[in-house]
Amino acid sequence: MKVFNTSFTLSTEERCEVSDITKLIREVIQQSPVANGIALINTLHTTCALFINEFQSALMDDLRNLAERLVPERGGFRHDDPRYSDCERGNAHAHLRTALLGRSIAVALSGGEMVLGRFQSIIFAEFDGPRKRDVTVQIIGE
Amino acid sequence: MKVFNTSFTLSTEERCEVSDITKLIREVIQQSPVANGIALINTLHTTCALFINEFQSALMDDLRNLAERLVPERGGFRHDDPRYSDCERGNAHAHLRTALLGRSIAVALSGGEMVLGRFQSIIFAEFDGPRKRDVTVQIIGE
Amino acid sequence: MKVFNTSFTLSTEERCEVSDITKLIREVIQQSPVANGIALINTLHTTCALFINEFQSALMDDLRNLAERLVPERGGFRHDDPRYSDCERGNAHAHLRTALLGRSIAVALSGGEMVLGRFQSIIFAEFDGPRKRDVTVQIIGE
Repeated sequence: MKVFNTSFTLSTEERCEVSDITKLIREVIQQSPVANGIALINTLHTTCALFINEFQSALMDDLRNLAERLVPERGGFRHDDPRYSDCERGNAHAHLRTALLGRSIAVALSGGEMVLGRFQSIIFAEFDGPRKRDVTVQIIGE
Repeated sequence: MKVFNTSFTLSTEERCEVSDITKLIREVIQQSPVANGIALINTLHTTCALFINEFQSALMDDLRNLAERLVPERGGFRHDDPRYSDCERGNAHAHLRTALLGRSIAVALSGGEMVLGRFQSIIFAEFDGPRKRDVTVQIIGE
Repeated sequence: MKVFNTSFTLSTEERCEVSDITKLIREVIQQSPVANGIALINTLHTTCALFINEFQSALMDDLRNLAERLVPERGGFRHDDPRYSDCERGNAHAHLRTALLGRSIAVALSGGEMVLGRFQSIIFAEFDGPRKRDVTVQIIGE
C-alpha cells in the first residue's frame, strides 16, 4: 500500500471567484505512484470551497448568485461585528458558504485516472479573495 | 491491501425523484473481497445527488419542497437562458441542488458491513430525470 | 496496511448546539497505529451534522441563525405532521439541516497528525438535542 501526500498553492484575484482545477489535480495524480485507490482533496481554509459540478460559465454565475441569495455578503452577521468578533475581514458569508458547499472531495482512482463523469469538474470557489490558498492532495492505494 | 471497483446504473422515472439505494450498495459491498476499509460511492453526474439521511416518505416530500424553495426549478437561471448557455435541458436548478447536497459519500466498512446508524439510508436524488444514472463504488481496505 | 476502527459518544445538552470536537478526534488518532492515511469521521445519526470550519463563537451564532433561516424549526414540515409520519419528535428541520451540512468528513493523516489548516476545526452540530450521539472514526493507512 502506498500513501502519497502533496499540496499546491492557488492565487485568487477576485473577492469571489470560481475556477476549474481539474487539470491541476490530474497533474498531481499523474505524479503519484498510486494507480488504484482514493484521492482526497482538501483546502486548508475555512472561507473557500471545493466541490464537483459542471464548469459552465453561465452556471457559475448562477452559483455565485445563489450563494449571495442564500448567504448575502452583507448579511448582518455577528462574526463581522467588532462587538462579537476580532475578525476584521468581514468574511462571515465566506465561512457560511463554505460550510454549505464543503471544503473537501474524495475521488476514486482507477488505472491511474480519476473516475469522473463527462461533465464533472473539480471546482474551487474563493469567497474571501484575493488570497493565496493551499490545496492538499492525499492519495492512498496501490 | 485490496482495491475493488464497480458500478451500476439506475433508471429514474420522474423529473425529481428520491430513492433509497442502501440495499443496492450493500449487495455490491458483499461481492467485494474487502471486509474492513472504506467504500466511496459517487454518481458520475452533476444533476443528481447522493447523501445519507432517514428515508421516510413525508421527510422526502419535505426535502423536495426545501430544494424547490431554496433553488426553484424556474429560478431564472442564466444556465437555462439560450443567450448564455447552449444547454437546452433547463436544468440549472438540478446542478445547484446537487452542489448543495453533494454527489459522493464515504462509508466505513467493518467485518464486511457498512458502518451505518439505525436510521441512516443512502439516498439518491434525481433532479433532472428521467434518465439513466451511473453510480460507482470504490472499496479499499483488506 | 492497517485499518483502525473506533467510536465515542457525545452527550449534548441543548436543543441546538455546536461544539468543537477536534481535540477528541486528535486523541483517537493518536491512539491508532496509522501514521499516514485517511481518517473518516461519521455520525451514526440523521439529525446532527459534522463539518469543518472555524470555531469562533459569533460565527457559530451566525451558523445557527442561517440554519434557522434556511430551514426553520417550525417550518410546517410533513415529517412533523402525525397525518403523514409517526415520528413524534418534530425534528424534520434537524434532518434537513443535516442533509445540507453533511454528517461525515474525511481528513488526511501525515506523520500521525491530521492535515488541517490553522483555522480548521472539526465541528459537531446537534439539531435535535439533548441526546447521546455516536461518532465513529475509521482510519486506514500505514
